[in-house]
Amino acid sequence: MKKMILASTSTIYGSTYLDYIKDEVKLLFSNSKKIIFIPYARPNGLTYEEYTEIASSFFITLGIKVNGIHEYKDLKKAITENDGIFIGGGNSFLLLKTLIDNDLINDLKEAINSGKPYLGTSAGINICGPSIGTSNDMPIVHPTSFKAMNIIPFNINPHFLDANTNNKHMGETRETRIKEFHFFNSQIVIGLREGSYLSIYGERIILKGNKSARVFELNKKPYEIEINFNLKNLL
Amino acid sequence: MKKMILASTSTIYGSTYLDYIKDEVKLLFSNSKKIIFIPYARPNGLTYEEYTEIASSFFITLGIKVNGIHEYKDLKKAITENDGIFIGGGNSFLLLKTLIDNDLINDLKEAINSGKPYLGTSAGINICGPSIGTSNDMPIVHPTSFKAMNIIPFNINPHFLDANTNNKHMGETRETRIKEFHFFNSQIVIGLREGSYLSIYGERIILKGNKSARVFELNKKPYEIEINFNLKNLL
Repeated sequence: MKKMILASTSTIYGSTYLDYIKDEVKLLFSNSKKIIFIPYARPNGLTYEEYTEIASSFFITLGIKVNGIHEYKDLKKAITENDGIFIGGGNSFLLLKTLIDNDLINDLKEAINSGKPYLGTSAGINICGPSIGTSNDMPIVHPTSFKAMNIIPFNINPHFLDANTNNKHMGETRETRIKEFHFFNSQIVIGLREGSYLSIYGERIILKGNKSARVFELNKKPYEIEINFNLKNLL
Repeated sequence: MKKMILASTSTIYGSTYLDYIKDEVKLLFSNSKKIIFIPYARPNGLTYEEYTEIASSFFITLGIKVNGIHEYKDLKKAITENDGIFIGGGNSFLLLKTLIDNDLINDLKEAINSGKPYLGTSAGINICGPSIGTSNDMPIVHPTSFKAMNIIPFNINPHFLDANTNNKHMGETRETRIKEFHFFNSQIVIGLREGSYLSIYGERIILKGNKSARVFELNKKPYEIEINFNLKNLL
Protein backbone atom coordinates (compact mmCIF):
# COMPACT_ATOMS: atom_id res chain seq x y z
CA MET A 1 0.00 0.00 0.00
CA LYS A 2 1.33 3.41 -1.04
CA LYS A 3 2.15 5.76 1.86
CA MET A 4 3.11 9.32 0.98
CA ILE A 5 3.06 12.84 2.34
CA LEU A 6 3.45 15.44 -0.41
CA ALA A 7 3.89 18.92 1.01
CA SER A 8 3.83 22.16 -0.97
CA THR A 9 6.68 23.53 1.14
CA SER A 10 9.04 22.25 3.85
CA THR A 11 8.70 25.37 5.95
CA ILE A 12 5.80 27.71 6.52
CA TYR A 13 6.27 31.35 7.41
CA GLY A 14 7.12 31.89 11.07
CA SER A 15 7.79 28.22 11.75
CA THR A 16 10.77 25.85 11.61
CA TYR A 17 11.69 23.13 9.10
CA LEU A 18 8.88 20.54 8.70
CA ASP A 19 7.40 21.56 12.05
CA TYR A 20 3.86 22.11 10.74
CA ILE A 21 3.62 18.50 9.51
CA LYS A 22 5.60 16.88 12.31
CA ASP A 23 2.71 14.65 13.47
CA GLU A 24 1.98 13.48 9.91
CA VAL A 25 5.63 12.72 9.25
CA LYS A 26 5.86 10.82 12.55
CA LEU A 27 2.87 8.71 11.55
CA LEU A 28 4.22 8.14 8.02
CA PHE A 29 7.54 6.87 9.31
CA SER A 30 6.20 5.12 12.43
CA ASN A 31 7.78 1.82 11.37
CA SER A 32 10.99 3.36 9.99
CA LYS A 33 14.29 3.37 11.89
CA LYS A 34 16.40 4.83 9.08
CA ILE A 35 15.42 6.71 5.96
CA ILE A 36 17.27 7.75 2.84
CA PHE A 37 17.43 11.48 2.09
CA ILE A 38 17.94 12.61 -1.50
CA PRO A 39 19.48 16.11 -1.47
CA TYR A 40 19.86 16.45 -5.25
CA ALA A 41 17.62 19.55 -5.57
CA ARG A 42 20.24 21.59 -3.63
CA PRO A 43 18.28 24.72 -2.56
CA ASN A 44 20.53 27.79 -2.43
CA GLY A 45 23.34 25.65 -3.79
CA LEU A 46 23.75 23.85 -0.46
CA THR A 47 26.15 20.90 -0.56
CA TYR A 48 24.65 17.42 -0.22
CA GLU A 49 26.20 17.21 3.26
CA GLU A 50 24.76 20.53 4.42
CA TYR A 51 21.31 19.71 3.12
CA THR A 52 21.30 16.23 4.64
CA GLU A 53 22.31 17.76 7.96
CA ILE A 54 19.18 19.95 7.90
CA ALA A 55 16.94 16.94 7.28
CA SER A 56 18.83 14.93 9.88
CA SER A 57 18.40 17.58 12.60
CA PHE A 58 14.66 17.34 12.20
CA PHE A 59 14.38 13.55 12.05
CA ILE A 60 16.61 13.05 15.07
CA THR A 61 13.79 14.55 17.14
CA LEU A 62 11.62 11.63 15.95
CA GLY A 63 14.32 9.07 16.74
CA ILE A 64 14.91 8.37 13.03
CA LYS A 65 18.33 8.16 11.41
CA VAL A 66 18.79 10.00 8.09
CA ASN A 67 21.27 8.66 5.54
CA GLY A 68 22.22 10.90 2.63
CA ILE A 69 22.15 9.03 -0.69
CA HIS A 70 25.52 10.58 -1.61
CA GLU A 71 27.12 8.54 1.21
CA TYR A 72 26.43 5.31 -0.71
CA LYS A 73 28.45 3.78 -3.52
CA ASP A 74 25.48 1.71 -4.67
CA LEU A 75 22.65 4.21 -5.01
CA LYS A 76 20.02 1.60 -5.78
CA LYS A 77 20.96 -0.29 -2.63
CA ALA A 78 20.62 2.97 -0.69
CA ILE A 79 16.93 2.94 -1.60
CA THR A 80 16.27 -0.72 -0.81
CA GLU A 81 18.33 -0.76 2.41
CA ASN A 82 16.50 2.08 4.10
CA ASP A 83 12.94 1.89 5.32
CA GLY A 84 11.72 5.27 4.13
CA ILE A 85 12.51 7.95 1.53
CA PHE A 86 12.59 11.73 1.79
CA ILE A 87 13.24 14.01 -1.19
CA GLY A 88 13.62 17.66 -0.24
CA GLY A 89 12.91 20.79 -2.26
CA GLY A 90 15.15 23.05 -4.30
CA ASN A 91 15.40 23.06 -8.07
CA SER A 92 13.17 20.57 -9.92
CA PHE A 93 15.27 20.57 -13.10
CA LEU A 94 18.40 19.75 -11.13
CA LEU A 95 16.59 17.10 -9.08
CA LEU A 96 15.08 15.35 -12.10
CA LYS A 97 18.31 15.54 -14.09
CA THR A 98 20.33 14.00 -11.26
CA LEU A 99 17.75 11.23 -10.75
CA ILE A 100 17.77 10.47 -14.50
CA ASP A 101 21.56 10.63 -14.76
CA ASN A 102 21.84 8.18 -11.84
CA ASP A 103 19.10 5.93 -13.28
CA LEU A 104 17.02 6.10 -10.09
CA ILE A 105 13.54 6.96 -11.39
CA ASN A 106 12.33 3.37 -11.73
CA ASP A 107 13.92 2.24 -8.47
CA LEU A 108 12.20 5.01 -6.55
CA LYS A 109 8.91 4.37 -8.28
CA GLU A 110 9.05 0.67 -7.49
CA ALA A 111 9.97 1.25 -3.85
CA ILE A 112 7.20 3.80 -3.30
CA ASN A 113 4.56 1.76 -5.13
CA SER A 114 5.55 -1.23 -2.98
CA GLY A 115 4.76 0.73 0.17
CA LYS A 116 8.04 2.27 1.27
CA PRO A 117 6.96 5.48 3.03
CA TYR A 118 7.75 8.63 1.03
CA LEU A 119 7.97 12.24 2.12
CA GLY A 120 8.37 14.92 -0.53
CA THR A 121 8.45 18.70 -0.27
CA SER A 122 8.30 21.24 -3.10
CA ALA A 123 10.56 19.91 -5.92
CA GLY A 124 10.25 16.53 -4.16
CA ILE A 125 6.53 16.52 -5.05
CA ASN A 126 6.92 17.91 -8.58
CA ILE A 127 8.67 14.67 -9.51
CA CYS A 128 5.80 12.49 -8.23
CA GLY A 129 3.42 13.45 -11.05
CA PRO A 130 3.63 12.63 -14.78
CA SER A 131 6.06 15.49 -15.47
CA ILE A 132 7.86 18.50 -13.98
CA GLY A 133 6.06 20.64 -16.56
CA THR A 134 4.32 22.71 -13.85
CA SER A 135 7.44 23.53 -11.87
CA ASN A 136 8.03 27.15 -10.83
CA ASP A 137 11.79 26.75 -10.94
CA MET A 138 14.47 28.25 -13.12
CA PRO A 139 15.82 25.85 -15.78
CA ILE A 140 19.41 25.99 -14.48
CA VAL A 141 20.29 22.58 -15.98
CA HIS A 142 18.82 20.59 -18.88
CA PRO A 143 17.28 17.19 -18.13
CA THR A 144 16.96 14.91 -21.18
CA SER A 145 13.24 14.65 -20.42
CA PHE A 146 10.64 16.39 -18.24
CA LYS A 147 8.88 13.06 -17.54
CA ALA A 148 8.84 12.29 -13.84
CA MET A 149 7.93 9.33 -11.61
CA ASN A 150 4.22 9.32 -12.46
CA ILE A 151 3.25 7.83 -9.09
CA ILE A 152 0.26 10.15 -8.80
CA PRO A 153 -1.88 10.73 -11.89
CA PHE A 154 -1.77 14.52 -11.87
CA ASN A 155 0.86 17.24 -11.94
CA ILE A 156 1.36 19.40 -8.88
CA ASN A 157 2.17 23.07 -8.84
CA PRO A 158 3.77 23.62 -5.43
CA HIS A 159 3.89 27.01 -3.68
CA PHE A 160 0.73 27.85 -5.61
CA LEU A 161 0.07 31.59 -5.56
CA ASP A 162 -3.16 33.40 -6.36
CA ALA A 163 -2.91 36.38 -8.67
CA ASN A 164 -2.36 39.64 -6.83
CA THR A 165 -4.88 42.00 -8.38
CA ASN A 166 -2.95 45.04 -7.14
CA ASN A 167 0.22 43.91 -8.86
CA LYS A 168 1.64 46.19 -11.56
CA HIS A 169 4.09 43.53 -12.69
CA MET A 170 3.26 42.32 -16.21
CA GLY A 171 4.77 38.81 -15.95
CA GLU A 172 2.25 35.97 -16.29
CA THR A 173 0.19 34.87 -13.29
CA ARG A 174 0.48 31.29 -12.09
CA GLU A 175 -3.01 30.62 -13.44
CA THR A 176 -2.06 31.89 -16.91
CA ARG A 177 1.01 29.66 -16.93
CA ILE A 178 -0.99 26.56 -16.03
CA LYS A 179 -3.51 27.46 -18.71
CA GLU A 180 -0.62 27.60 -21.21
CA PHE A 181 0.55 24.19 -19.92
CA HIS A 182 -2.84 22.78 -20.89
CA PHE A 183 -2.41 23.82 -24.51
CA PHE A 184 0.23 21.10 -24.75
CA ASN A 185 -0.56 18.67 -21.92
CA SER A 186 -3.77 17.05 -20.74
CA GLN A 187 -3.19 15.91 -17.14
CA ILE A 188 -4.96 17.58 -14.21
CA VAL A 189 -2.83 20.11 -12.32
CA ILE A 190 -3.26 20.68 -8.58
CA GLY A 191 -2.25 24.13 -7.34
CA LEU A 192 -1.10 23.28 -3.81
CA ARG A 193 -0.75 26.32 -1.57
CA GLU A 194 1.92 26.65 1.12
CA GLY A 195 0.61 25.12 4.36
CA SER A 196 -1.27 22.35 2.55
CA TYR A 197 -0.23 18.82 1.65
CA LEU A 198 -1.54 15.55 0.25
CA SER A 199 -1.76 12.53 2.51
CA ILE A 200 -1.76 9.36 0.43
CA TYR A 201 -2.51 5.97 1.94
CA GLY A 202 -3.39 3.34 -0.64
CA GLU A 203 -6.06 4.69 -2.95
CA ARG A 204 -6.99 7.67 -0.76
CA ILE A 205 -5.37 11.01 -1.69
CA ILE A 206 -6.56 13.45 0.96
CA LEU A 207 -5.95 17.21 0.90
CA LYS A 208 -4.79 18.31 4.36
CA GLY A 209 -3.34 21.41 5.97
CA ASN A 210 -4.81 24.87 6.24
CA LYS A 211 -5.72 25.96 2.71
CA SER A 212 -7.99 24.82 -0.11
CA ALA A 213 -6.28 23.74 -3.33
CA ARG A 214 -6.99 24.87 -6.89
CA VAL A 215 -7.76 22.29 -9.56
CA PHE A 216 -6.96 22.91 -13.22
CA GLU A 217 -8.54 20.53 -15.68
CA LEU A 218 -8.18 20.73 -19.43
CA ASN A 219 -10.98 22.83 -20.97
CA LYS A 220 -12.62 23.56 -17.59
CA LYS A 221 -12.77 26.63 -15.43
CA PRO A 222 -10.35 26.20 -12.47
CA TYR A 223 -12.05 25.46 -9.15
CA GLU A 224 -11.28 24.96 -5.47
CA ILE A 225 -11.30 21.76 -3.43
CA GLU A 226 -11.49 21.97 0.34
CA ILE A 227 -9.47 20.31 3.12
CA ASN A 228 -10.33 16.59 3.55
CA PHE A 229 -11.34 16.25 -0.10
CA ASN A 230 -10.27 12.90 -1.58
CA LEU A 231 -8.53 13.66 -4.88
CA LYS A 232 -9.28 10.13 -6.01
CA ASN A 233 -12.70 11.57 -6.88
CA LEU A 234 -11.14 13.76 -9.56
CA LEU A 235 -10.02 10.80 -11.62
CA MET B 1 26.44 46.12 -37.82
CA LYS B 2 24.12 44.51 -35.29
CA LYS B 3 20.94 46.49 -34.54
CA MET B 4 18.74 45.24 -31.74
CA ILE B 5 16.24 46.41 -29.17
CA LEU B 6 15.81 43.90 -26.35
CA ALA B 7 12.95 44.85 -24.04
CA SER B 8 12.13 43.23 -20.71
CA THR B 9 8.42 43.43 -21.48
CA SER B 10 6.24 44.42 -24.44
CA THR B 11 3.80 46.37 -22.31
CA ILE B 12 4.28 48.42 -19.18
CA TYR B 13 1.57 48.90 -16.60
CA GLY B 14 -0.99 51.51 -17.63
CA SER B 15 0.22 51.72 -21.22
CA THR B 16 -0.50 49.96 -24.51
CA TYR B 17 1.47 47.38 -26.48
CA LEU B 18 5.04 48.57 -27.24
CA ASP B 19 4.01 52.19 -26.70
CA TYR B 20 6.79 53.02 -24.23
CA ILE B 21 9.50 52.12 -26.78
CA LYS B 22 7.71 53.39 -29.87
CA ASP B 23 10.42 55.92 -30.78
CA GLU B 24 13.19 53.35 -30.37
CA VAL B 25 11.34 50.82 -32.50
CA LYS B 26 10.72 53.44 -35.15
CA LEU B 27 14.43 54.22 -35.26
CA LEU B 28 15.40 50.54 -35.31
CA PHE B 29 13.17 49.82 -38.29
CA SER B 30 13.64 53.16 -40.06
CA ASN B 31 14.80 51.39 -43.23
CA SER B 32 12.34 48.51 -43.00
CA LYS B 33 9.16 48.29 -45.07
CA LYS B 34 8.13 44.78 -43.97
CA ILE B 35 9.23 42.71 -41.03
CA ILE B 36 8.79 39.08 -40.07
CA PHE B 37 6.98 38.37 -36.80
CA ILE B 38 7.66 35.09 -35.00
CA PRO B 39 4.65 34.27 -32.79
CA TYR B 40 5.93 30.89 -31.54
CA ALA B 41 5.95 31.85 -27.83
CA ARG B 42 2.12 32.05 -27.89
CA PRO B 43 1.30 34.02 -24.69
CA ASN B 44 -2.02 32.90 -23.18
CA GLY B 45 -2.21 30.22 -25.84
CA LEU B 46 -3.02 32.80 -28.55
CA THR B 47 -3.06 31.41 -32.08
CA TYR B 48 -0.27 32.50 -34.42
CA GLU B 49 -2.84 34.56 -36.34
CA GLU B 50 -4.16 36.33 -33.23
CA TYR B 51 -0.68 37.12 -31.95
CA THR B 52 0.52 38.39 -35.33
CA GLU B 53 -2.54 40.63 -35.49
CA ILE B 54 -1.51 42.29 -32.21
CA ALA B 55 1.99 42.98 -33.55
CA SER B 56 0.57 44.14 -36.84
CA SER B 57 -1.83 46.66 -35.24
CA PHE B 58 1.13 48.36 -33.61
CA PHE B 59 3.45 48.38 -36.61
CA ILE B 60 0.79 49.70 -38.95
CA THR B 61 1.01 52.97 -37.01
CA LEU B 62 4.68 53.15 -38.11
CA GLY B 63 3.80 52.33 -41.72
CA ILE B 64 5.44 48.91 -41.48
CA LYS B 65 3.90 45.69 -42.75
CA VAL B 66 4.09 42.66 -40.43
CA ASN B 67 4.25 39.18 -41.94
CA GLY B 68 3.70 36.21 -39.63
CA ILE B 69 6.27 33.47 -40.19
CA HIS B 70 3.48 30.85 -40.15
CA GLU B 71 2.18 32.34 -43.42
CA TYR B 72 5.30 31.10 -45.25
CA LYS B 73 6.01 27.63 -46.62
CA ASP B 74 9.73 28.29 -46.66
CA LEU B 75 10.51 29.56 -43.17
CA LYS B 76 14.15 30.35 -43.94
CA LYS B 77 13.08 32.48 -46.88
CA ALA B 78 10.65 34.29 -44.57
CA ILE B 79 13.67 35.54 -42.64
CA THR B 80 15.76 36.55 -45.64
CA GLU B 81 12.86 38.13 -47.58
CA ASN B 82 11.83 40.56 -44.85
CA ASP B 83 13.89 43.53 -43.73
CA GLY B 84 13.44 43.18 -40.00
CA ILE B 85 12.62 40.58 -37.33
CA PHE B 86 10.40 40.76 -34.27
CA ILE B 87 10.06 37.91 -31.79
CA GLY B 88 7.37 38.50 -29.17
CA GLY B 89 7.08 37.18 -25.62
CA GLY B 90 5.20 34.27 -24.15
CA ASN B 91 6.73 30.96 -23.13
CA SER B 92 10.51 30.63 -23.66
CA PHE B 93 10.48 26.82 -23.67
CA LEU B 94 7.84 26.77 -26.37
CA LEU B 95 9.61 29.47 -28.37
CA LEU B 96 13.01 27.75 -28.25
CA LYS B 97 11.54 24.31 -28.97
CA THR B 98 9.67 25.59 -32.03
CA LEU B 99 12.75 27.42 -33.33
CA ILE B 100 14.87 24.28 -32.85
CA ASP B 101 12.23 21.99 -34.39
CA ASN B 102 12.04 24.29 -37.43
CA ASP B 103 15.84 24.56 -37.64
CA LEU B 104 15.77 28.37 -37.50
CA ILE B 105 18.34 29.17 -34.81
CA ASN B 106 21.30 29.55 -37.16
CA ASP B 107 19.32 31.42 -39.81
CA LEU B 108 18.14 33.97 -37.27
CA LYS B 109 21.59 34.31 -35.80
CA GLU B 110 23.15 34.90 -39.18
CA ALA B 111 20.52 37.46 -40.21
CA ILE B 112 20.83 39.41 -36.96
CA ASN B 113 24.64 39.32 -36.92
CA SER B 114 24.59 40.59 -40.52
CA GLY B 115 22.64 43.66 -39.46
CA LYS B 116 18.98 42.79 -39.99
CA PRO B 117 17.19 44.86 -37.32
CA TYR B 118 15.84 42.74 -34.46
CA LEU B 119 13.23 43.54 -31.83
CA GLY B 120 12.69 41.10 -28.98
CA THR B 121 10.45 41.28 -25.93
CA SER B 122 10.46 39.00 -22.90
CA ALA B 123 10.88 35.40 -24.20
CA GLY B 124 12.14 37.03 -27.42
CA ILE B 125 15.16 38.33 -25.48
CA ASN B 126 15.76 35.15 -23.44
CA ILE B 127 16.72 33.42 -26.67
CA CYS B 128 19.33 36.05 -27.57
CA GLY B 129 21.76 34.98 -24.84
CA PRO B 130 23.78 31.75 -24.51
CA SER B 131 20.81 29.84 -23.01
CA ILE B 132 17.23 30.10 -21.77
CA GLY B 133 18.50 28.92 -18.37
CA THR B 134 17.37 32.12 -16.65
CA SER B 135 13.82 32.10 -17.96
CA ASN B 136 10.95 32.66 -15.51
CA ASP B 137 8.58 30.52 -17.53
CA MET B 138 6.87 27.23 -16.85
CA PRO B 139 8.45 24.28 -18.69
CA ILE B 140 5.26 23.39 -20.59
CA VAL B 141 7.16 21.66 -23.42
CA HIS B 142 10.61 20.03 -23.55
CA PRO B 143 13.21 21.50 -25.93
CA THR B 144 16.06 19.11 -26.77
CA SER B 145 18.48 21.76 -25.52
CA PHE B 146 18.36 25.00 -23.52
CA LYS B 147 21.10 26.53 -25.73
CA ALA B 148 19.87 29.67 -27.45
CA MET B 149 21.10 32.05 -30.19
CA ASN B 150 24.11 33.36 -28.25
CA ILE B 151 24.05 36.70 -30.05
CA ILE B 152 24.76 38.59 -26.84
CA PRO B 153 27.36 37.16 -24.46
CA PHE B 154 25.21 37.12 -21.31
CA ASN B 155 21.91 35.63 -20.22
CA ILE B 156 18.99 37.91 -19.54
CA ASN B 157 16.39 37.51 -16.84
CA PRO B 158 13.42 39.52 -18.15
CA HIS B 159 10.68 40.92 -15.88
CA PHE B 160 13.33 41.02 -13.15
CA LEU B 161 11.72 41.42 -9.73
CA ASP B 162 13.36 42.49 -6.50
CA ALA B 163 12.62 40.41 -3.42
CA ASN B 164 9.60 41.66 -1.50
CA THR B 165 10.79 41.76 2.08
CA ASN B 166 7.20 41.73 3.38
CA ASN B 167 6.39 38.54 1.52
CA LYS B 168 5.40 35.53 3.61
CA HIS B 169 5.66 33.23 0.60
CA MET B 170 8.51 30.74 1.01
CA GLY B 171 9.24 30.12 -2.70
CA GLU B 172 12.71 31.23 -3.83
CA THR B 173 13.38 34.87 -4.73
CA ARG B 174 14.59 35.71 -8.22
CA GLU B 175 18.03 36.50 -6.81
CA THR B 176 18.25 33.07 -5.13
CA ARG B 177 17.31 31.37 -8.39
CA ILE B 178 20.00 33.21 -10.35
CA LYS B 179 22.50 32.33 -7.63
CA GLU B 180 21.54 28.68 -8.10
CA PHE B 181 21.98 29.11 -11.87
CA HIS B 182 25.57 30.15 -11.22
CA PHE B 183 26.36 26.88 -9.48
CA PHE B 184 26.09 25.23 -12.88
CA ASN B 185 26.68 28.04 -15.42
CA SER B 186 29.28 30.77 -15.65
CA GLN B 187 27.84 33.46 -17.93
CA ILE B 188 26.85 36.89 -16.61
CA VAL B 189 23.10 37.33 -16.01
CA ILE B 190 21.39 40.70 -16.46
CA GLY B 191 18.22 41.17 -14.39
CA LEU B 192 16.27 43.52 -16.68
CA ARG B 193 13.34 45.21 -14.94
CA GLU B 194 10.06 46.01 -16.70
CA GLY B 195 10.35 49.43 -18.32
CA SER B 196 14.00 48.94 -19.26
CA TYR B 197 15.61 47.63 -22.43
CA LEU B 198 18.94 47.16 -24.16
CA SER B 199 19.71 49.18 -27.27
CA ILE B 200 22.40 47.43 -29.30
CA TYR B 201 24.09 49.12 -32.26
CA GLY B 202 27.31 47.42 -33.29
CA GLU B 203 29.51 46.93 -30.24
CA ARG B 204 27.52 49.27 -27.99
CA ILE B 205 24.99 47.63 -25.66
CA ILE B 206 23.29 50.49 -23.84
CA LEU B 207 20.84 50.12 -20.95
CA LYS B 208 17.86 52.38 -21.58
CA GLY B 209 14.41 52.94 -20.13
CA ASN B 210 13.46 53.97 -16.63
CA LYS B 211 15.10 51.50 -14.25
CA SER B 212 18.58 50.38 -13.33
CA ALA B 213 19.44 46.73 -14.07
CA ARG B 214 20.96 44.15 -11.73
CA VAL B 215 24.13 42.33 -12.75
CA PHE B 216 24.89 38.83 -11.53
CA GLU B 217 28.43 37.62 -12.05
CA LEU B 218 29.79 34.28 -10.93
CA ASN B 219 31.30 34.52 -7.43
CA LYS B 220 30.52 38.23 -7.08
CA LYS B 221 27.95 40.12 -5.08
CA PRO B 222 25.15 41.29 -7.43
CA TYR B 223 25.23 44.99 -8.25
CA GLU B 224 23.28 47.67 -10.12
CA ILE B 225 24.10 49.39 -13.40
CA GLU B 226 22.40 52.67 -14.26
CA ILE B 227 20.61 53.89 -17.39
CA ASN B 228 23.04 54.70 -20.26
CA PHE B 229 25.61 52.20 -18.99
CA ASN B 230 27.37 50.39 -21.85
CA LEU B 231 27.23 46.66 -21.04
CA LYS B 232 30.19 46.12 -23.33
CA ASN B 233 32.21 47.26 -20.30
CA LEU B 234 31.15 44.17 -18.36
CA LEU B 235 32.91 41.83 -20.76
